[in-house]
Amino acid sequence: MAEAPRTKRKREEEDGAAAHDGAAATDPFPLAELRLRRVLRESARDKAVFLHGEVRGGGDGTDAVVILEKTPFQEEKVSELLKKHTKLELQMRNDIYSTYHLYPPPELSEIKTTVVYPATEKHLQKYLRQEVHLIRETWEDYKNITLPFIQSQSFSIQWVYNILEKKAEADRIIHENPDPCNGFVLVPDFKWNQNQLDDLYLIALVHRRDVKSLRDLTAEHLPLLRNILQEGTEAVAKRFGVPGSQLRIYLHYQPSYYHLHVHFTALGYDAPGSSVERAHLLADVIDNLAMDSMYYQKRALTFTLRADELLLKKFQEAGRV
Amino acid sequence: MAEAPRTKRKREEEDGAAAHDGAAATDPFPLAELRLRRVLRESARDKAVFLHGEVRGGGDGTDAVVILEKTPFQEEKVSELLKKHTKLELQMRNDIYSTYHLYPPPELSEIKTTVVYPATEKHLQKYLRQEVHLIRETWEDYKNITLPFIQSQSFSIQWVYNILEKKAEADRIIHENPDPCNGFVLVPDFKWNQNQLDDLYLIALVHRRDVKSLRDLTAEHLPLLRNILQEGTEAVAKRFGVPGSQLRIYLHYQPSYYHLHVHFTALGYDAPGSSVERAHLLADVIDNLAMDSMYYQKRALTFTLRADELLLKKFQEAGRV
Repeated sequence: MAEAPRTKRKREEEDGAAAHDGAAATDPFPLAELRLRRVLRESARDKAVFLHGEVRGGGDGTDAVVILEKTPFQEEKVSELLKKHTKLELQMRNDIYSTYHLYPPPELSEIKTTVVYPATEKHLQKYLRQEVHLIRETWEDYKNITLPFIQSQSFSIQWVYNILEKKAEADRIIHENPDPCNGFVLVPDFKWNQNQLDDLYLIALVHRRDVKSLRDLTAEHLPLLRNILQEGTEAVAKRFGVPGSQLRIYLHYQPSYYHLHVHFTALGYDAPGSSVERAHLLADVIDNLAMDSMYYQKRALTFTLRADELLLKKFQEAGRV
Repeated sequence: MAEAPRTKRKREEEDGAAAHDGAAATDPFPLAELRLRRVLRESARDKAVFLHGEVRGGGDGTDAVVILEKTPFQEEKVSELLKKHTKLELQMRNDIYSTYHLYPPPELSEIKTTVVYPATEKHLQKYLRQEVHLIRETWEDYKNITLPFIQSQSFSIQWVYNILEKKAEADRIIHENPDPCNGFVLVPDFKWNQNQLDDLYLIALVHRRDVKSLRDLTAEHLPLLRNILQEGTEAVAKRFGVPGSQLRIYLHYQPSYYHLHVHFTALGYDAPGSSVERAHLLADVIDNLAMDSMYYQKRALTFTLRADELLLKKFQEAGRV
């Protein structure tokens, strides 16, 4: 999977996540008291690291996942950085080329830190680096393997409902079409700190709750999908000044949570999960459905699964891998 | 183009690079005296920025290119980072998820700095970001804009014919099906040095010379495409031990040369050009053609063009961008 080594900070409520201690979720997270257990994964390209830590309490420690990711440079602060570095060490010189180590002051070297606390075993597994396998899922496979698997898992998507019901992140909403059938909410993705447009990343979450993924889409959903494409593009242009010709608008299959959502990312940003084996352009999805309402109930779809994913085991048991 | 925003740190001697002042190349580089002229390019994903700066001398300033890139986390220093941060600011909280800004001490936030000094105009051009534009090409656009453009350009693909005729790279051929209509040659791509399998990259070049791209494909080409998928996969497994479940097999649209070819890359390798706005999985292409022989003569196709590409100008002249 192209995005395997990349950062993945999607929010999924796994089984057991709901069983956490309510108090812990409202206390400030004691980062300095965290004991590092192991590095789950790192990405040299993204400058990110995924950690399994433990917070010591009265008895046994409580698990936490901590994701550290260096942030993109901010254009308006680059001059300051050049002048205010605390130290500059020459590393190598060859003709007109030279390289240095530059050590910036703290205020110019922010690290984006994401905490999942308390974390369950499922959270830990999710962030642990794994081998990936390519699956070509026919419609029969979907019906016989994938769908029963999705239904057997009680993935909680309470965080999505919190947003749709304005119980969380209400101040972050960029655009809403309130129609219960063809409406949606557009919010910045967690991965985007909104400081620069280069890595712009928003998510459109549909209001209706009966569409799990691309596989459920038929021509019936065309008005919804066209609303997302048109209104989403307009809202991003209006709020951020980024025109539609600079946006990559797509769905994931498999998605990381089974409530239909659409990704909006800056075209120049090589976003995790934008590779051909996972992303489906919304414009293509619309054209395919307009051509054949049953397109996604006929066509085989390719995706990758990590070695530890239960769905891979289901495909293996069915002799399909 | 997916690879446009990435860092490129190859050192190429451009014309004029040799004409620099020898003294300047041995003096220490005065980073703090650098006046920032403009940001040439930045990469949010790589956390890198390419700067055009000027060093003030006696008369006019001397140009320099300065590349700043944040460095990957070092596993052995992560514990220190968690304890020694100078400040931790809560940004957002929702259920068990929270995000923070963490400000590390200078010694734990090194920036790799590369300087090209003195820099010529060619260096500046090389690092300058080209805007990319998303194009949604209908079949009419293809016939009226793209096809006449391809025909008007005398792109030389002699190097492809040299391979097919064994006049070049004959010793590099991994597999061949010699059939003039449904056959092909599989060779390692130039980008792959064959030293490690992580970035495995091969190209299948078809023997027939009348298929320019995806747009020309119909059900007539299914035997050819199925041969490439099946024999190509088998050949890679046999020669390199990489199974089909670890391969991403796809076509580009637009391709970089108009002689039909198929890319084979390692699934775990985030290869340039594997994003959804350029890549089309061979398995999907085969299924689409099996479903509708005219699929690629009906469907709109999305791709990106850089601001300096002539084809973009043609779309602009036609009022399609």
